[in-house]
Formats: sequence, structure tokens, C-alpha cells
Amino acid sequence: MEKLKVFGHKNPDLDSVAATVGLTHLLKIRDDIDCEMVVLGQFNKETKFVFNKFDLKLKLTLVSKLEDGESVALVDHNEFSQSIANIENAKIKMVVDHHKIDNFKTSEPLEYIAKPLGSTSTILYGLLKEINGLGKMEVNVLLLSAIISDTLLFKSPTTTEIDIKSAKELAEILNIDLYTYGLDLLKAGADLSDVISDILIQEDSKEFDCNRIKYWNFPNKCNWFK
Amino acid sequence: MEKLKVFGHKNPDLDSVAATVGLTHLLKIRDDIDCEMVVLGQFNKETKFVFNKFDLKLKLTLVSKLEDGESVALVDHNEFSQSIANIENAKIKMVVDHHKIDNFKTSEPLEYIAKPLGSTSTILYGLLKEINGLGKMEVNVLLLSAIISDTLLFKSPTTTEIDIKSAKELAEILNIDLYTYGLDLLKAGADLSDVISDILIQEDSKEFDCNRIKYWNFPNKCNWFK
Repeated sequence: MEKLKVFGHKNPDLDSVAATVGLTHLLKIRDDIDCEMVVLGQFNKETKFVFNKFDLKLKLTLVSKLEDGESVALVDHNEFSQSIANIENAKIKMVVDHHKIDNFKTSEPLEYIAKPLGSTSTILYGLLKEINGLGKMEVNVLLLSAIISDTLLFKSPTTTEIDIKSAKELAEILNIDLYTYGLDLLKAGADLSDVISDILIQEDSKEFDCNRIKYWNFPNKCNWFK
Repeated sequence: MEKLKVFGHKNPDLDSVAATVGLTHLLKIRDDIDCEMVVLGQFNKETKFVFNKFDLKLKLTLVSKLEDGESVALVDHNEFSQSIANIENAKIKMVVDHHKIDNFKTSEPLEYIAKPLGSTSTILYGLLKEINGLGKMEVNVLLLSAIISDTLLFKSPTTTEIDIKSAKELAEILNIDLYTYGLDLLKAGADLSDVISDILIQEDSKEFDCNRIKYWNFPNKCNWFK
């Protein structure tokens, strides 16, 4: 039987990958559903950093287009323009997301869980906690890292108290120093090659001050440290 | 401060009214948010039957149009064509629904809870149970009645095991005989004046067999017994 494909948005960030792993884990233990973990592009630097640091062996399949009628679950996005090719003809069974909804449509009723939180991984942490599903190290590591990444270690204006509480609880479960690890992770995501000039840095960016490190949050989630 | 307006779809059925009351109760006890319960049209016969039988004193305000920028929560629908006038310019803070999603859009992230169950009231029963919020008789009576109504006492093809389990638990809490009450409720909803002729009965309807009573489910939720 065809497995349910789970995936985040194009140009996948850490939250998309972590939520893919988190939802796959949730559906297995909650509903005994086997999913195929899919990714729509190469891992970014933050994601590679987490996989290397914790020696994660998870396998995500790179897919660029669906066949007609495939069953799928979307995480960390809902807009078809950000999704896989041919999403219009898929059976969307589930969505877990933290973004606004933009002209989303389905052919059938579905499970849709959205909350206005700092990351999709925060939502999945809550769902897993509810069913005592926080046993897997690799899931917890990815959820914690994605909360840090999407909230810029709680400095993003989209950060909520629930994100902070969730990250603190995950760090405690994993016995990780949250702020030391968080800064290492965000630094790993910074990449000079993404930036052409100081002018570009200033354009369309927001400045934040995280302890003594200044950085800008770009809409495409690339962060720059100074 | 302006209260959050909570409402179901136009031509409100029992599930829209029950979910309005249920979500208002949930938001009060979960988030300490005061809501205004709104209805977009007159109660139907089933809803009047429940209010009369249990002498419910709940006040829902009849509203037909929103001011620009009002904060709202939708239950039992998401399509703008089924919603209040000027919904396009509202701040939609929350949706609880069991239908497919059709070109839904918001300007901001929101809480959206959809599940493919037989009624929106089943979803609200689950959410209230999770937070030990099932103390109010009027809320429980409306949720039970709406599950019965939307699933046609479990004979509708959209009925799930979760709907049946939820209704049985509610009936036990309320000390109500589920099937006796369920048939009384469905009979109260049947109304000769809604039907012009036998020809109309057969058009665009589905036939179900509930014990020895035959009835048709019309898309507009008007039921006909024979």
C-alpha cells in the first residue's frame, strides 16, 4: 500500500524537516499510520549541522512532483505555490502549520491543526506531549532545534511564551544547555555566500539583538551575524 | 473592549449553534476570553426543540454583517460564501470545523482545528474533554444533540466511531437515553412545510434507513421521515 507522504515547503528550512519527522512519529504512535518522510530540496546549513552533531540516521526522500491522487500531509506550509508540484491533484489528509492560510483548498474533509506559534515544531511538541510521545531522541533534537531556528532563539517577534516553555522542556529532556546550543545552531546557519553586500543585508530585513550578537532576520530565514 | 464574535454558517443548523456555544465555553475556560455568541439566522426546528426541552437560557445575537476589522471565530464552516457579510475584512482568529476547506484565507496566522468527523460538536467535545471542561449542562446537551443531528443518529455515511463514542459518553454524563432522545430530536426536525412534493423529496437527496424509519438527508440538513 502506498504510504502517506509527509513534507514541508520548497527550499526546506529546519522547521519543515523537523515537523516532517515529528508528524511521521505522531501518526505512527497515534494512528499506527506508516508515512514516507519527504523533502522538497536539499537540507540547509542548520539542518545539516543538527544531523551531523547528533549523528541522525533518518532518511528523507527527495521528491519534486506527485502523481495524481497521492495521499499527503503538509507541514509548515499550506500555500500551493510553496508546495510540491501537482499538489492540486493530491488527497491532502492533514496539515500542521503556523502560518496564515492563503487560498487553501481540499476535495475532502481533513485534519488541519494550525496555531499562531513561533514554529510548527512547537505545535508538534504539544501534540506529542499530549499522547506521551516524546520518547525518541532524534525527534526531540529536531523539534528543539527547529523552535530555536524559527524563533531565532526567542528573539523573533513571532515568538510566544509557549515556544519558550516548549524549548526549555525539550532541552531539559535532552540534557542540553539551551542558549549555548542555540547560539551554536544559529551560527551554523549563517553563511557568507548567501549575502552579496552590506546593502543587501540591510534590505528587507529586521534587526535583533541576541545577547551581544546582532543579527538580521531575512524573510527567507537566512540569518546574518555580526 | 470588543468581544470576539463566534458564529456558524448562514441558515444555521443545530451543529452551528452547538459549536458556537461550545467554542465560547472552551475559550472562556482555556484562555479566559469573553466571546459574543452570534447566529446568522433563525434557529431551525431541531434547535428550538432542544432549547425548549431543556429550558436553555443562552443568548445568541442575530447579526448579518461585520464591521471592518472585527475579530471573529468561525465554527462549522470555512467558506466565505457560507459566512457572514464582510467576512473578507474580518480578523479570523480561530476556526473549528469538520468540512473540506474551500479557498479559505486569512491575513494573519490563526488557530485552525479541523477533523474529518461527523460533526463540529464532536471536535468540541474532544477539546473540552481534554481540559476537563464538560461541567455545563447546556453545553453538553447542545453538543450531544448536534452530534445526533449531524450524523442522523449515526446513520449518515460521514459518521465515525469517535462520533458514536462521544455521543454515548455525553448521554451518560447527562443521564439521557441516547436512542429514545435521538429519535425524538430527529422527528422534531422533520417539517412538512419544508417540502413541496414527493418529487422534491427525491431530488438531490440521500436515503437512509434508521431502524424502521426511512428518511432522506437533504444537503440543507432538512430531514424527511416516512
